[in-house]
This record gives sequence, structure tokens and C-alpha cells, in this order.
Amino acid sequence: MGACQSFREMCDREKDTNVRLSLPAVCVVWQTAMIILFGVFIRYDHESDAHWVEHRKHLNLTDIENDFYFRYPSFQDVHVMIFVGFGFLMTFLKRYSFGGVGFNFLIAAFGIQWALLMQGWFHSLDYTDGKIKIGIENLINADFCVAGCLIAYGALLGKVSPVQLMVLTLFGITLFAVEEFIILSLIHARDAGGSMVIHTFGAYYGLSISWMLYRPNLHQSSRLQGSVYHSDVFAMIGTLFLWMFWPSFNSAICDHGDGQHRAAINTYLCLASTVLTTVAISSLFQKHGKLDMVHIQNSTLAGGVAAGTAAEFMLMPYGCLIVGFCCGVISTLGYIFLTPFMEKRLKIQDTCGIHNLHAMPGVIGGIVGAVTAASASVEVYGHEGLVNTFDFEGKFKDMVPTTQGGHQAAGLCVALCFGIGGGIIVGAILRLPIWGDPADDDCFDDETYWEVPEEEEEVSSSFICLGFVLFSYQTNDAVIAFCCSRLYCIQSPLDGSTAQFWDYSHILM
Amino acid sequence: MGACQSFREMCDREKDTNVRLSLPAVCVVWQTAMIILFGVFIRYDHESDAHWVEHRKHLNLTDIENDFYFRYPSFQDVHVMIFVGFGFLMTFLKRYSFGGVGFNFLIAAFGIQWALLMQGWFHSLDYTDGKIKIGIENLINADFCVAGCLIAYGALLGKVSPVQLMVLTLFGITLFAVEEFIILSLIHARDAGGSMVIHTFGAYYGLSISWMLYRPNLHQSSRLQGSVYHSDVFAMIGTLFLWMFWPSFNSAICDHGDGQHRAAINTYLCLASTVLTTVAISSLFQKHGKLDMVHIQNSTLAGGVAAGTAAEFMLMPYGCLIVGFCCGVISTLGYIFLTPFMEKRLKIQDTCGIHNLHAMPGVIGGIVGAVTAASASVEVYGHEGLVNTFDFEGKFKDMVPTTQGGHQAAGLCVALCFGIGGGIIVGAILRLPIWGDPADDDCFDDETYWEVPEEEEEVSSSFICLGFVLFSYQTNDAVIAFCCSRLYCIQSPLDGSTAQFWDYSHILM
Amino acid sequence: MGACQSFREMCDREKDTNVRLSLPAVCVVWQTAMIILFGVFIRYDHESDAHWVEHRKHLNLTDIENDFYFRYPSFQDVHVMIFVGFGFLMTFLKRYSFGGVGFNFLIAAFGIQWALLMQGWFHSLDYTDGKIKIGIENLINADFCVAGCLIAYGALLGKVSPVQLMVLTLFGITLFAVEEFIILSLIHARDAGGSMVIHTFGAYYGLSISWMLYRPNLHQSSRLQGSVYHSDVFAMIGTLFLWMFWPSFNSAICDHGDGQHRAAINTYLCLASTVLTTVAISSLFQKHGKLDMVHIQNSTLAGGVAAGTAAEFMLMPYGCLIVGFCCGVISTLGYIFLTPFMEKRLKIQDTCGIHNLHAMPGVIGGIVGAVTAASASVEVYGHEGLVNTFDFEGKFKDMVPTTQGGHQAAGLCVALCFGIGGGIIVGAILRLPIWGDPADDDCFDDETYWEVPEEEEEVSSSFICLGFVLFSYQTNDAVIAFCCSRLYCIQSPLDGSTAQFWDYSHILM
Repeated sequence: MGACQSFREMCDREKDTNVRLSLPAVCVVWQTAMIILFGVFIRYDHESDAHWVEHRKHLNLTDIENDFYFRYPSFQDVHVMIFVGFGFLMTFLKRYSFGGVGFNFLIAAFGIQWALLMQGWFHSLDYTDGKIKIGIENLINADFCVAGCLIAYGALLGKVSPVQLMVLTLFGITLFAVEEFIILSLIHARDAGGSMVIHTFGAYYGLSISWMLYRPNLHQSSRLQGSVYHSDVFAMIGTLFLWMFWPSFNSAICDHGDGQHRAAINTYLCLASTVLTTVAISSLFQKHGKLDMVHIQNSTLAGGVAAGTAAEFMLMPYGCLIVGFCCGVISTLGYIFLTPFMEKRLKIQDTCGIHNLHAMPGVIGGIVGAVTAASASVEVYGHEGLVNTFDFEGKFKDMVPTTQGGHQAAGLCVALCFGIGGGIIVGAILRLPIWGDPADDDCFDDETYWEVPEEEEEVSSSFICLGFVLFSYQTNDAVIAFCCSRLYCIQSPLDGSTAQFWDYSHILM
Repeated sequence: MGACQSFREMCDREKDTNVRLSLPAVCVVWQTAMIILFGVFIRYDHESDAHWVEHRKHLNLTDIENDFYFRYPSFQDVHVMIFVGFGFLMTFLKRYSFGGVGFNFLIAAFGIQWALLMQGWFHSLDYTDGKIKIGIENLINADFCVAGCLIAYGALLGKVSPVQLMVLTLFGITLFAVEEFIILSLIHARDAGGSMVIHTFGAYYGLSISWMLYRPNLHQSSRLQGSVYHSDVFAMIGTLFLWMFWPSFNSAICDHGDGQHRAAINTYLCLASTVLTTVAISSLFQKHGKLDMVHIQNSTLAGGVAAGTAAEFMLMPYGCLIVGFCCGVISTLGYIFLTPFMEKRLKIQDTCGIHNLHAMPGVIGGIVGAVTAASASVEVYGHEGLVNTFDFEGKFKDMVPTTQGGHQAAGLCVALCFGIGGGIIVGAILRLPIWGDPADDDCFDDETYWEVPEEEEEVSSSFICLGFVLFSYQTNDAVIAFCCSRLYCIQSPLDGSTAQFWDYSHILM
Repeated sequence: MGACQSFREMCDREKDTNVRLSLPAVCVVWQTAMIILFGVFIRYDHESDAHWVEHRKHLNLTDIENDFYFRYPSFQDVHVMIFVGFGFLMTFLKRYSFGGVGFNFLIAAFGIQWALLMQGWFHSLDYTDGKIKIGIENLINADFCVAGCLIAYGALLGKVSPVQLMVLTLFGITLFAVEEFIILSLIHARDAGGSMVIHTFGAYYGLSISWMLYRPNLHQSSRLQGSVYHSDVFAMIGTLFLWMFWPSFNSAICDHGDGQHRAAINTYLCLASTVLTTVAISSLFQKHGKLDMVHIQNSTLAGGVAAGTAAEFMLMPYGCLIVGFCCGVISTLGYIFLTPFMEKRLKIQDTCGIHNLHAMPGVIGGIVGAVTAASASVEVYGHEGLVNTFDFEGKFKDMVPTTQGGHQAAGLCVALCFGIGGGIIVGAILRLPIWGDPADDDCFDDETYWEVPEEEEEVSSSFICLGFVLFSYQTNDAVIAFCCSRLYCIQSPLDGSTAQFWDYSHILM
């Protein structure tokens, strides 16, 4: 008994989850750094600067042609996906809803600031004055960039400390910005909805970290690794907001006009198709044909991921339905067969199943993008439409669809390499015993990092009745009286008879 | 005892709720059919096609004049209403939240695809090449079309299988498209927000089906036919998103400019007024003046339904308040008096009370539309405004407001006939014993079609303590042991002393 | 004992929470008054009137330049904040979620109507015909106006009756409209996001009322003054929708073009920064560094409040981060130190902590606005930009930034005076014993004004088993029978043996 206790104390010493110094320090220091860097680098772009009124007269534009009106509704939808969508999707665990939605909130709020800087240096630097000029499109891109890290969080949900998540986000955003610059600017791959840049990268980044942080004794907290009825309903809030606003996600930074219009339609159709095949596979592989909430919550979204790269292309309505069809099947089968396999054999513990929701559909999206790009023709797009859609301008004006297809494939490879490579490095950093991560039997438990309210409910009043009855039998048994009085404390105004008991129990204690 | 058991077994054989083959088959086959039909018929319209860039230069338009920017924010609001609004409104039952939000998701995702085809054949067929050309307005209309079926689902909530819902949706969408074509195109009634086309049709369609599927022994599951505290809060998510976005619903496909603007204002006012009278009636008819969540969740929305047809008309701000006032009163009284009457006398079991929320307000909306149209004048609308609002163009260019009023009334009758007639026919089909619908005592229970997580909570462990205490008194009483062992099952890992008890109880049983 | 009981009865007589007559009367009479006043005063403005089609041709505008398309997406976001944001933020109490979201719904629906009238008389009166002309901007302003009253409700949550809330709203909207007219039109302060006009006013209005309605014995309901696990997750829905859509709130009525664009960016950055410092302070001041949900739910929003006044100004991205940084720190410290102090020493019971979320950040926002305005320069804004941003036109065309700064400060003082003064007067009115407010031990309990579903779950059936067992021992003990029969009532259909018991217990009682 003593040996056991001292062993436990030792473990507790090893796994010190007290983040009272590290978390505030990280938050305050990094936020201060953001202020300084923003002070040095970030300014408004010409459409959000007060000089716009002169600028637009010069360009003979009306106010409605400010990019704000093209993109703000989509931006808000994306914003909802990042904070409510990803946040509530991760509330499905019975005792990790605070951590799911709360840490998602924290790292997204940090990530968007760091992303504005990182992406700004690569894409929005004004070389005349060395400043990054930001507008609404930068905000959307920052949200996109954060999405990669939130996907990675999905694999690690319940097993890491908030400090680890901040570190994961810092490196994740940095890697993302570099990878995105290589894929979009150097390789000139198109990726409007980020199948490759966001989903493939984010998922493999998270899976690699999870592999590095493998916990052989995670079964010690298996009692908490499921859902309860209402936590599953909360998670459906996340699912539905992701599902509904995915057309905005994939169209948010597309070309004005037909680009945004087509991306929204394509994604809408892809997602609709996915729901039906997800339901089909979920029912087919469960005994009695019962549906599994895990599949409905996650696999129904796979079509949106896969529609990302080709969203802007002439994928054709039936093409979208085919992509969605396949993704629903593959993603649901992944949950049924692949996730258990990965945990047992590959030592990858993937809490939310991001391999099925983001990794595989992301790769499919990259391939669909490459094939669609390679098979583009002037017949289908029109001459101007082809140049417009694939941005065959500037130093890429001589590109043709077939080479574009090759570039798309190259982009997918870069995303994979960055995700896996970056994840392994960052995973190694996160294994250092200084980040306050939880012990194996404290995983998936909000008690570790949150003040959790005590549950009681009226049930207790019924308990009191029973307790009272017991009490009337055995008035000389102090143990029962103590038990009853404890229950009694919860409930206050009672009728005379119980008050009598109350007085009595005081005497006994 | 034996007879009873064999009877029950027989019933269970009759009511086989295993949808392991039928549900996947329906989903996969119908989705495949959608792919083929989309391949043959559906293409992008000129505003979402890559040729737009050439097209708009030809028409001298800017990108912002693409219909996408007029309608996309409204579309997303409507999308939220369909999936989160209707979905969460149906989570109010204590043990049917999965079915409420999940099946809503499934049939909406199927319905929008089928609606794109059905409505496309009637309204968007390009006769030059025989293709349906879709853009953002088609997506909105598909969502509208699905709304009719989701309303019908409200009457049947908890009493049908997902396969029945798919069949209901297939026929519902088909009937809707025909009915809509007759009302809007042939009769030339105006119905921007669908009081007649969506709500009246959908509600009577659902009520007729419910009448055909009448379950005399539904009281067997009455224990599950109520709400719990948190399920009522979940339902408020649905209520509020419907309430807030209803102005977008009624304005989504109105004319550009003042049409959309006025429809949004009218609906906003109608809904505000409804809330106050709903609260008034709810409080007035409950003892102690307590408010009933059922009324707040549903009747507050009646004003939005009734504002549908006349949304685009010059209903005048005070007119909207009057309509809302009446709808709040009538809808709440319906919940108090009419729903119990309909269940007892008319054999119509209406789980969500769609008769009060959609049927009556829908008919009111149709009448308000007819009256408002008949009393329209050049003075109020202006000459161009009148033509513009009522679309007195083409072969209807000689119509005057009074005849328009008659046409509106005719439209309402068509919606009623299609709803009731279609519902009876589809109800007859759904009575076939092949769809896997639940037995009377399995209604309103997610266990039938969903893998439901087991609840435990600390409560059960307290039970065991009490049970154990009792047990220690009376070890020779088998009844207690049985009772305790049943409680014991809820909790799994226990210390030695209880395990001892566990063994003991086995002996006793 | 007898004396105690009669005293309690007397108190119950004094505190009659039956609102069966007063609530319906207030709702119906006031709604009728609204209809009459709307009939006399309110008409569509030129952009929502059917004459727009002629009007726009006259002005050579396209449909997309209708103000609807500039503001409708922001309006819907604001609408979500008012109804879902504020509503769900107040669901955090364990047994007051119905009251939180339901009464919020009621008073907001009444408030927007009254606000259209009050604000209309001051700002949108067309002197040619004496009518108020409303368009989308009026709807947004009405939502803003209501926000002030909802903030005040936050301080009083759980302690007032719905009738009191209606009175609070009636006077609150009236005071708001006068105060807003003085600040914006007479003093010519700028306050796009309402740091002063909405938040400072609303918070001090609510705090003053709470001070007037001080309940010395509120500890009697302290058992209900906390959250449970799932109510905290519900509250996060409110938090996140407020947080995400705050950029829309602050930009909704800004100038077209760069004004709206810049306000959205500024608010986005302010809020991001606040999250990190809130987490830092929350963790730092709790033992073991655990985060407190109260802080995460509330203080993360403080940055949005403080960004209100200066949202449209050239606050600069780093300036926004600094404001957010400070607000997160101050607001969280307020929850930790100031709220308990105010309750104990200043006799101000502030349920939601609006002093920390709205009052202090609102004042900070006012000061930031004054400083930013005073330091504005032609260099930063451009000449036209300066005139445009600060509206130096008409009779204010000679103003300069430094005087504008003074006017801003004056505006802040007016907001404070109206809030505190108005709150004391309205608080005195609400102390009259006619409003049906709850007794001290009925506070924070939905049972008082709502039909609350009984909780049972399987637990209750287990109770019955236990009760029955007990009963079989002691058939001559009436107390047990009573206790059992009470439990029995919860559950309806039982087998023969229990029915027998049921009969028996009747005899005993």
C-alpha cells in the first residue's frame, strides 16, 4: 500500500499538470511579441485604409467594389467554422468538452495573429515600405492557416496540455506558411479550398505528432474516451456548422464572380452526396444496422475536404457527386477498420479520427485537383476562363493544363512531406517533460486543466428521502446519519418532518 | 406468461426495425441514380460557368453584379435554417435528439439533390441543349423544396424509420415541384417565402401521412414523449436560428433591390410581434402563469410563416405587426386546444405540432397574400413598382391587382389539395410492412436506429452504496439481491468488497 | 415552528410570482400600442419602398448599390449576437437556462419594435410627412439599442420577473434613444460600435438597478447560483457567436467601403489579443493554474467592447492588439477581485459580471476613442479620409481632431450619467411590490416562471425498486409509503405488483 502510494506520488511528480506559470508566461510573452511585430510590420491595405476614398475615385470604383463586400460574408462563415465548427466538433467526449471548445478557442486566437505575420511576409509584403498590408483576404487566409493546426489538435484531443498546443500552433503556422508559399507561389499549384495545403498538411502534421507522443497505457483513461448522449448532440452543432459553411470555406478566396459562385456550388453538391454514402456504410457495418454518431459527425464532412482543390475548376455537378460518394465510403470505412488498426499496429492514437476526415479526403482532393486540371480544355473553360481559373499569367503564362496537372501533383507531395516531417520534429519537441501534459489516467478529463462544476441535480432530494427512511431504522448508526446529512446539505427548504431529521443528524455527527 | 411472451415475439417479428440492408440499399442506389441524372442533365448556368468572364464583358457588368453576391448571404442563412434550424428544433424529445437532428440531416442532403433535378426540369431547363442550368438561386430553391419535407417530418418525428423518411422525401419533393410549377408558373401566384407552396403544402402533407399511419397504442411510449431540461435548451438553438434567419428565408429569392430589402423588414417585424402574443397566451392558459417551452420554441415562429407570401408586397410595417399578433395567438391556442383534440378525435398524431406552426399560419399567409395583392394600387407601388413586384409581364402583362388576388387564392387551394391528396397516397405506401418502422413502445427512442452511448454518472455508484447497505442487513432476501445486482450492472470497475457482493447476488438469483 | 411557518407564508404572499395576468396584459397591451404607433408613424424608406425601381434609375444606381447589400450580412450577424449570443451566454446557470435564453428572446423582440419608434423619432423622421422611414440601417440600430437592455439584464439574471424585464426594457430603450441622440447628434461624438452608447450606458444602467434591488438574503438560493457541466458548454455557444460576429457588430453601421472594412479588421485583432491575456490571468490566479469557465465565457469578449468607439478610426493593427491585451487583463481581474468586492461592500449583485465585461471595457473604449480621435492627422487619414471618417461636414465642418477628442470624452460622461441616473430611477420603479419578482430562495430557478420538465431517466425506476423493497418491510410506516408514492408518481406504466403497492399507499396516506 505504501509502495503503491509512493509510486503514484512519483508519477504525479513526473506528470506535473500544473500550468500556472508556463501557460500565463507563454500567453503573455507571445502576445507581447505579437504587439511588437505588428507594430513593426503590419498596416492596413489600400482597401481598408482611410485613403481608400481618394483611391477609389482615382480608380473609378464604387464603394460596393471594395473587396470587403465580395468576401466578408464568406469570411464570417469561415470564422464560424474555425471557432464553432472545429470547437464543437471536439466536444463529443463526455468529460472533455471544455478542453475541446476552450483550447480550440485559445490556439485559434493565437494562431490567427501569428498567421497574419507569417503569411504576410510571404504574400502581402509591400516592398516599397517593408510593411505587410492586410485586408479581408488576409483575415480569411489567417483563419485557413489556423485550420491546419486545429485539425492536428483533433488527433491529440485530450492527451496534451494547453502549453503543448500553443507550441504546436507556433510551429504549425510557421510550417504552413512556408509550405503554402512553396505550393501556391513557387510550384504554382491551385488550391482554393486547401485540400492539400490545409487538410493534407494539417492531418499528417497531427498524426505524426500523435505517433511521437504515443501513450502505451492510454487504456487507463478509456472510461472517459467515449461520449454521452448530450455531448454527441453538442458535437452535431460543430458538424452542421462545418457542413453548411464549407461552400463558403472553399469559395472564400476564389476569383470574384464565377470562381466563387462555382466553388460554392461544387462544394454544396460534394457534401450532399457524402451524407448518403456515410449513412449507408455506417448502417451496413454495424450490427442491427444502427447508425453510429461518430460517422455522422465526421465522415459527412469528407466531401468538403475533397472538393477543396478542384472547387474552382469545372468539376461539373455530377463530378462533385462522384467525389462525395467515394469520400463518404472511404472515410466511414476508415473509422471502422483503419483507426483501430492504426492505434494497435502503427502506434498512432487519433482521438477524432482526422486520418479519415482530413488526411485521406485531403489526398483524394489533391488527386482530383490534378486530374481535373490536367484535363481542362479551352472548350469547357473558354479561353479567358482558362487563363482566369488557372491564373496562367505573368511568368506562368505559357503553362498548359497538362503541366498544371503535374504541378498539382507536386504540390500534394510537398504538403505530405511538410506534414510528416514537421510533425516528427515538433513531436520530438513536445516529448520534452516540461510542458505539463497529463498522466495516462488523466487524459480526456477536464479536471486536469479546468475548474469543473460539481454535478448534483434533484436526484439528491430523492436520496434524502431514502436516507431518511434508512435513518429511521437505525438511529444509532452514525455512518448513515453522516451520509444523509451530507446529502441533505444540497437541498435546503424542506417540510417540518425533515427539518426534525436535520436537527437530529446534527446531534449524531 | 408464455402466451404473452410469444405474442410479444410475434410483434417483434412484425416490427423488424433492422434497416441494415434497406437503408444502405436506398442510400447507395438513389445516390447512384442522382449521379447518372446529374451527368445527363445538370450543368452550370452562365453566372457560375467559366465563360462568365467573357459573358459579363459582353453585358458590360462588373463582377459584383453576379447573382452570387445578391443571394449568397441569404442562401447561407437559409442553409442554416434547414440543417440547424429544423434539425435542432426537433431535438426537444428526451431520447430522440439523434434521430431529430440526424435524420433531418440525411433527408435534407438527399432532398436537395432530387430537388435540383425536379425543380430544374420545370424552371431551369435550357431548351437549346436540354440541360438544366444551375446557379445560386437553384440552390436556394432546393433548400426551400426540402423544407416542405422537413415540415412533414415534424408530424412524424419518432414514429418512422429512416427508410420511410427517404420515401417520404422522394415523393414529397416530386409533389412539391409539380405543385410549385402549377402555383407559380401556371396560376401566376406570387409566393416569395412559400407560405402556400412550402408551409401549407408541407404541413398538410405531413398531417395526412400521420393520419394514415395512426398508432392507437402510441401511449406505450408516452414515457419518452416529453423533453428534459437540456433537450429543451438544444431545441431553443433551432428556434432561434429559424427566428433570426427567417428574414433571409422570405427575401432570398425576391427581386433584387427593394424586393429583398422590403421582404426582410416585413418578416423581421412580423416575427417580433409574434413573440409577445405567444408569451401572453402561453402564460394566460397555464396555471400559475408559467410559460411553456413548447410554445416558445414553436409559436414564436408562426409570424415568419405567415409573412411568406406577402413578404415582397407593400404590407406596411403596422400590417406586419398585425399579422404577427394574430399568428402568435392562433398558433399558441392551437398547441393548447387543437393538438390534443386532433390526436383524440381526428386520429392525427402530430409530434411537433406542425399544424399550429406551419399549417394554420401558412393558410393565414396565403389569405394575407391574396388580400394584399387584391388591394395593391399604383398609388402605393408606383407604376413600375407594381409591374415589378407582381411581375405583370409577358403573357400576364394585362393582369390587375384584383385578378392577382384571385390567383393567389387559387394557389392556396392547389397547395392544400396537393398536401392532403399527396399525403394520403404516400401514407398508404408507407403503411406497407417493409420499411422497418418501430413498434409502438419503441417510438421516440434513439436506441432503435442509433448506437447510443451508455449513461452512467456518479449517481449509479451511490445507488450501489445504498443497495449494498440494504444487502448487508438482509442477506437472505432474494428480491433485494436481484434489485442490487441490476443496479450493479451499470457500474463496472469496483473494489473487492462489492465484487464479493456481486458473487453473492448471483447465487441468490 | 408555527411562527416560522406563518412568517414564511406571509413572505410568500408578499412575493407572489404568479404573472398570469400581469405578463399577458403587458405583452398584449404594449404590442397593441406598437401596432397603433407603427400605423401612425412608420413607413418604408426609399430603398425598401416599391418606388425604388424608379428612384434608382433617377439616381443612376444599380440594384447592388441598395444599402441592403452593404449591410444585410452584418445585420444578420448582429441579429445572431442579440438572440443567440446574449441568450446563450446567459444559459450558464444550472437551472436558469430557460429564463436566460427565453426572457432574452422576449425583451429583445419587444425592444426592437420600441427602438424603431424611439430612434426613428430622433434620427429618421421625414419632416415632409411626419413619418419615420425605415430601412436596413434602422433594423441594425434597433438591435443595437436592445443590446443595452440585454446587458442590463445580465446583472439581474435570475432575480427579476419577466414583467420587470419588460419595464426595464421600455425605459431602457427610451433612455438609450435620448442618450444616443445627445451623444451622436448634439455632441457629435463618433461611436460606431457603441462602447459608450451601448456598453457603458447598458452596464451602468443594469448595475444601478441591481443596486436598487439589492437582496441581502440572496445566499438562500446560492445552491442554484452556479453552473453544471453542460450549461457551461451551452454558454460557450453564446460566447463564440458573440466573439465571432463582433467584427460585424462594430462595422455594421460604419461608412461604406473602407469604414466597414477597417472596423472589421480592428475588432478582429482586438478580440484575438484578449483571448490570450484572459487565459493567462485566469490560469495565474487559480490554484493549480486551472482555467475558469466564467472568465473564458466573458472576459474574452472585452476586447470587442473596447474596440467599439475607435473601430472606424485608424487605430492601427498593433493598437488593437494593445487594447485587447489590456482588456483581457482588466476584465479577468475584475471577475476575480472586483465582483466579490462589489457584492459585499457596494451591495451590487452582478450575476453575469457585466461590470467586467461591459462597464470597464466600455469606458476603456470611450477613452481609447477620445485619444485616437484627438491624435488623428491628415497624414494618416488623408484629407478626404479625415472628413469622411469623423464626418466633419455640415455644421461640424470646422471641427478638428483635437476638439473631436474632447467631444468624445464628453460623450462618455453623458453615457455614464444616463446609465447611473436612469438605472436609479428605473430601479426605484422596479422595487414596487407589484411586478411578481421571486423570493430570495426562488432566485435562479426556472420553476418560478416556467413549466420545467421533470427529470427522471432510468434512475427513477431504480428508485422505485428500492422504495418498493423498503415498503415490503414496513407496511405500517406511513412516512415510507408517502415517500415511495411520491417517487412512484414520476413513473407511469408499471407491472401488477407495483400497482398493488400504489393502491396500498393511497390507503396509508
